[in-house]
Amino acid sequence: MSTEFDNYLANKFGIRFHNEALLDAAFTQASYVNEHPGRHLKYYQRLEFLGDAVYELVVSTYIFKHYPTLPEGRLTRLRAAMVDRQSFSKLAKECHFDKHILLGKGEEKAHARNRVKLLCDIFESFIAAVYIDQGMKPVVRFCNQVIFPKLGQGWFDEYFDHKTDLQERVQEHGPVKIQYHVLDANGPDNKRKFKVSVTINNKQLGIGVGHSKKNAEQHAAKKALEVIDKNN
Amino acid sequence: MSTEFDNYLANKFGIRFHNEALLDAAFTQASYVNEHPGRHLKYYQRLEFLGDAVYELVVSTYIFKHYPTLPEGRLTRLRAAMVDRQSFSKLAKECHFDKHILLGKGEEKAHARNRVKLLCDIFESFIAAVYIDQGMKPVVRFCNQVIFPKLGQGWFDEYFDHKTDLQERVQEHGPVKIQYHVLDANGPDNKRKFKVSVTINNKQLGIGVGHSKKNAEQHAAKKALEVIDKNN
Repeated sequence: MSTEFDNYLANKFGIRFHNEALLDAAFTQASYVNEHPGRHLKYYQRLEFLGDAVYELVVSTYIFKHYPTLPEGRLTRLRAAMVDRQSFSKLAKECHFDKHILLGKGEEKAHARNRVKLLCDIFESFIAAVYIDQGMKPVVRFCNQVIFPKLGQGWFDEYFDHKTDLQERVQEHGPVKIQYHVLDANGPDNKRKFKVSVTINNKQLGIGVGHSKKNAEQHAAKKALEVIDKNN
Repeated sequence: MSTEFDNYLANKFGIRFHNEALLDAAFTQASYVNEHPGRHLKYYQRLEFLGDAVYELVVSTYIFKHYPTLPEGRLTRLRAAMVDRQSFSKLAKECHFDKHILLGKGEEKAHARNRVKLLCDIFESFIAAVYIDQGMKPVVRFCNQVIFPKLGQGWFDEYFDHKTDLQERVQEHGPVKIQYHVLDANGPDNKRKFKVSVTINNKQLGIGVGHSKKNAEQHAAKKALEVIDKNN
C-alpha cells in the first residue's frame, strides 16, 4: 500500500501494520493478481472468510454486553442487521477503503469499485488483516470507533423495541399491569421534551426522556429493563 | 452445578468456573426456569447466541492457519461442516453434557435431552460461558482437545480434496502436467503401505504415504501444496 494510506490508517484508526503484505492482500482483488502474474501477489478472499467470523464475534460480544435485557431472538436480528452487506459497504466508503482497492482493468471498467459485495468483502478482509497482524484488541478498538457509534445514530433503530421487550419480560409468569405516564412536557413546540415514567403493578421502575412521547416511553422501558436485570 | 460436574470439567478440560451461575445458566433450559419461578434462574439462550460466534471464530482461525492452501470456498464448506448441528450434538454427548442439562418435567418426558437442537445449543452456550468467564484462550484449548483432533479422525474428510486443490492451484495460469507415481508398496495385503510422488512438469514437489494409493496421492498433493505455498 502507499505510504499515504499507511499514514491515514495510523492517524485515523491508530493502526500501523507490521506485515505490510497482509494489508496489500486485504485490498487486492483476484483480477489484479491475474494481470500481474510475475509479482506473486495474494488476494483478499481467504482473509474475507476469516474477517467475517472476527467481525461477527466482536459485534456479538458488544451487543451481548450492552443489551443485557435483549432476548436471544432480538440479539440475532440486531446482529444480522449489523453484519449486513449494505451496512458494511456504507462503512467501507466512510473509511475511504473504496479508493484503495487494487482491481484488474476489466473490473475497473465494470465499476466494481462501487459494488456492494466487493466493498463488503474488503471491509471484512481488512478486519481479518488487523486481527492476524495485531490480535483482537485493535479490531475491537476499530469497531468501537467506526461501527458501534452507529447504534446511537439510529442506523439499526428498527431492531430495538424496549417496550415490547419489557412487556415480554415482566409477563413471563402471567399478566401484570404496565403503565406509562407523562410526568412533564416542556420547551417550544419544535424542541419539546417529554418526561415519562413506567410503572409495573403501580410501582415505578423507570423514567425516560425524549423529544417525543414514544421516544421517552422507549427510554423509560429501557431503564426499567436495566433495573429488572440488576435485581435478577 | 454439582461439585461432581465441576470436578469433571476441571479434570477433563482444565476448566474451573469463577462465576458458577454462568455455568448453571449454560445448562439450564427455559422450561426448568419456568418451573422454579422463585429461584430467579437464568437460561442458556442468550449464551447460545454468543457461543455460536465464539466457536465460529475459533474454528475459522484454526482452519485458516492449518490449511494455508485451501481456497476460500473450501474453507467456507469445511467451516459449515464443523459448525453443523449434527457435529455439535455428537460432541456434546462425547463430553457427557447431555447428562447435566436442567429440563422442565414436560421436556424431560418428551425426551428433549437427546434432541439434536438442544444438544447443539448447550454445546454453544457452554463455550460462551467459558469465554465470558475466562476469555478466549481456554476456549481454544477446549477446541484443541475436543474438536480439532476430529479433523485427523476423518469426521470431515469429505470436505478435503488436496488433489483437486493442487490442480486448481497450479493451473491458475494455464495447463501444466501433474503426475502421480507409486514409488513403493510393501507390507502384507491388509496392512499395505503406499509411497507416492507427485510431479509438476516433471519436477517432484511432494511425497505422500498412505494405506491406499488414493490416500497416498492425497497426502502427496497436500505436501506439494505446502511447498508451493511456502515459495509464494
